Amino acid sequence: MKKSIHLLYLLLLLGALQIETVPEAKAAQKPNFVVIFADDLGYGDLGSFGHPSIRTPNLDRMAVEGQRWTSFYVGASVCTPSRAALMTGRLPIRNGMMSAQSRVLFPNSEGGLPASEITIAELLKEQGYATAVIGKWHLGHLPQYLPTAHGFDTYWGVPYSNDMDALAGFPGYGKESARDAHYAATIQQYNVPILRDTEVVERPADQNTLTSRYADKAIEFIGAHRDQPFFVYLAHNLPHIPLFAGKDFRGGSRRGLFGDVVEEIDAGVGRIVATLKELGLDRNTLVVFTSDNGPWLPFKTHGGSAGLLRQGKGTTYEGGMREPTIFWWPGKIVPKVQMEMGTTMDLLPTFCALAGAATPQDRTLDGYDLSPLLLGSAEKGPRDTVFYWREEKLFAVREGPWKAHFITEGCYGVGDKREVHAIPELYQLEQDPSEKYNVASLHPDVVARLKGVAERHKATLTPVTNQLEKRSSAALR
Amino acid sequence: MKKSIHLLYLLLLLGALQIETVPEAKAAQKPNFVVIFADDLGYGDLGSFGHPSIRTPNLDRMAVEGQRWTSFYVGASVCTPSRAALMTGRLPIRNGMMSAQSRVLFPNSEGGLPASEITIAELLKEQGYATAVIGKWHLGHLPQYLPTAHGFDTYWGVPYSNDMDALAGFPGYGKESARDAHYAATIQQYNVPILRDTEVVERPADQNTLTSRYADKAIEFIGAHRDQPFFVYLAHNLPHIPLFAGKDFRGGSRRGLFGDVVEEIDAGVGRIVATLKELGLDRNTLVVFTSDNGPWLPFKTHGGSAGLLRQGKGTTYEGGMREPTIFWWPGKIVPKVQMEMGTTMDLLPTFCALAGAATPQDRTLDGYDLSPLLLGSAEKGPRDTVFYWREEKLFAVREGPWKAHFITEGCYGVGDKREVHAIPELYQLEQDPSEKYNVASLHPDVVARLKGVAERHKATLTPVTNQLEKRSSAALR
Repeated sequence: MKKSIHLLYLLLLLGALQIETVPEAKAAQKPNFVVIFADDLGYGDLGSFGHPSIRTPNLDRMAVEGQRWTSFYVGASVCTPSRAALMTGRLPIRNGMMSAQSRVLFPNSEGGLPASEITIAELLKEQGYATAVIGKWHLGHLPQYLPTAHGFDTYWGVPYSNDMDALAGFPGYGKESARDAHYAATIQQYNVPILRDTEVVERPADQNTLTSRYADKAIEFIGAHRDQPFFVYLAHNLPHIPLFAGKDFRGGSRRGLFGDVVEEIDAGVGRIVATLKELGLDRNTLVVFTSDNGPWLPFKTHGGSAGLLRQGKGTTYEGGMREPTIFWWPGKIVPKVQMEMGTTMDLLPTFCALAGAATPQDRTLDGYDLSPLLLGSAEKGPRDTVFYWREEKLFAVREGPWKAHFITEGCYGVGDKREVHAIPELYQLEQDPSEKYNVASLHPDVVARLKGVAERHKATLTPVTNQLEKRSSAALR
Repeated sequence: MKKSIHLLYLLLLLGALQIETVPEAKAAQKPNFVVIFADDLGYGDLGSFGHPSIRTPNLDRMAVEGQRWTSFYVGASVCTPSRAALMTGRLPIRNGMMSAQSRVLFPNSEGGLPASEITIAELLKEQGYATAVIGKWHLGHLPQYLPTAHGFDTYWGVPYSNDMDALAGFPGYGKESARDAHYAATIQQYNVPILRDTEVVERPADQNTLTSRYADKAIEFIGAHRDQPFFVYLAHNLPHIPLFAGKDFRGGSRRGLFGDVVEEIDAGVGRIVATLKELGLDRNTLVVFTSDNGPWLPFKTHGGSAGLLRQGKGTTYEGGMREPTIFWWPGKIVPKVQMEMGTTMDLLPTFCALAGAATPQDRTLDGYDLSPLLLGSAEKGPRDTVFYWREEKLFAVREGPWKAHFITEGCYGVGDKREVHAIPELYQLEQDPSEKYNVASLHPDVVARLKGVAERHKATLTPVTNQLEKRSSAALR
């Protein structure tokens, strides 16, 4: 026993010395922000959110060291509007980035995020931040809509979803993947480009290596900007179908190719965090991990799982819009399971507060500053409502634990048909997270109150040009 | 910075001194075992298994420090047969503790676990262990079936389910609880007794205080037997309905009374672990936490959640028999998410291996020694099959990741009616944990193989007297 205690002392001493060698240059600097955004990852697809056969040790560790948010939402349940919400802190219904006719941007789209919108990157740039998008943008692929036109110094990634530009005559991913959890398309079947800033540098994108290359690019950018505050928005285009995994991960998980992909994303997160530690930046960097919307259920084992939440991508049920979310910032964030509400639209005001930037005052923001919750100066969150928009209609409203559904509809291709409810369905989400027990008849007062919340919210909207409906007859590329 | 480092040294020094003061008496002693068994807790009802609005910080910490098992099963999806399996390491179909006519033991039952069965307690007692049951027994309430007749030194708790002995004329818990997640019955509505060894010492049990009293009793027993190896089987009778929470927990959770109860159980686990640490026993004590079966879904918000698993209590879907399971033994167990299969029937051979006891050789055991997985000497588990029995019929078989359902049926009162499948349904559980995608037509070879596994298993059975069907015309008490 004595010997082991001496060894312990030695280890402790080395640990203490280690602390002394950590660079202190960043101490007074503005914090860095790294947002890692998965695509179509469901609420239940991380180990720390209950998945039984996907290993995500890096994210799980961050969930324990930081805050694991259990009621964190996106601004819409499909790619383009969800990303517009994150980037601007505003619901996509406010800036034309949501449409009933075209759910997202396509290769033949001519619209995109308007120049009049103010992005997180623009606000941080004014504070001296280096800014980068790595990964999927999907807010317009014409030059005037690309990241470099929206406050980002650099961009490297796919401009839209990785299932677009599919070759004519390709028999269809859904049919093949339904038969085989390990089915992998070839990269030639999807002629998706990679852009560097505004130029195509690779086509088709080698999607097999893309997940690890995104992590590489993020690490490279962090290393190059270690002496300056930075904002990295790393938007993986996976596990959106078609699924591709790097050779070190293919066949590595128990969950089939979907699990391989998630485990590769997790490994990349681990490498980024290791880099932050090596560079002594970890205690000055807020890392946020979340997903753009829920799992794409029609793709069966090639889609994810919303865990105990109902439904998935495309819907306004919880499974469509509540995401597995982790905030990590060692020494700053008070470790806990955070059950207060948050959304991706809160990132803009939160980052502004932490960076000492003012938020735009000339427009309606839908976000709140979450930093008091993160840093432990508040127990109660600033957000009491969530608005669930789909295809330019307000389908549902959450206030506190109560959620009223005015319209319900399942995921494209699976689940219930659209139903407009004369009496809204009402669920108490904390007591009934799976939205199983409609209690509208027991709580007519709550239903009436939520109707009022919805009406007041709708009154804040102003007409706007729809960006998703501008499409040419042929793909531009 | 210098000052804080000196402070750090001081703290580390104090930490090291603390280690020196820990009692070393137990170093060479046989390990202690504490099994904490919840009742009707679902796979998704702990924070570490993904529940968004139930706080279980103590169990979550143990899950990180120890092993969180994601494919851990019980021997049956209702109380009595599940408990018989844990206690004997044998499927209840082998010892008459499963019945098609009477799913569990009732107050008017005259049967119980036969004296011919060998329990974990009997085996450990031969090795000098002090043994106790605290909580719900439900393996027979006549003296010859009680814990004291089955190798336990002491017993304190309810002999059967906490919803039994309900007062005549009570309008029904289901109706009331369906309306109100906070609905609480009065303890007088359920005239359930508490036994000390074989004597009734309280009736009706004060169920409001029972959860914390169970933890108290466990702590008391541990304290009294700190100098001797011990086995404590703490079987909570909650969150089985009727739900009751202590005054410090009532209304404390976001999840309604169900959440209050789970959070009180978690707090008790925390107190037990704190006691083990205070007494310097933590590094010589294996603590196992699991549940007897899945959530009782007909009770809506008063029942739990199986997370992403299908169905619940009473069924042979995963939600009925796969349980949220944590093994904790600091310094011994290799911390990890353990995805190999295990069952409660493996506890008997595992404890025997760790205690240096021989397992019974004169009968078929259905358990395997999991200690190599726990201690890190093996990556691959000893178990390749799980047998899903319900009401004396083999409903399903798992081999590796494959599960064949020969018969399916939903939970009592909710879900599908019984169906006997001419072609079994086949699910790949690791790729499809929610049992959504029947792939029998794609894998006839696997179906055939699993049919063979089922037949060979059934051939190991011998006729036995049914214990659950022995009932008198009136309650004995």
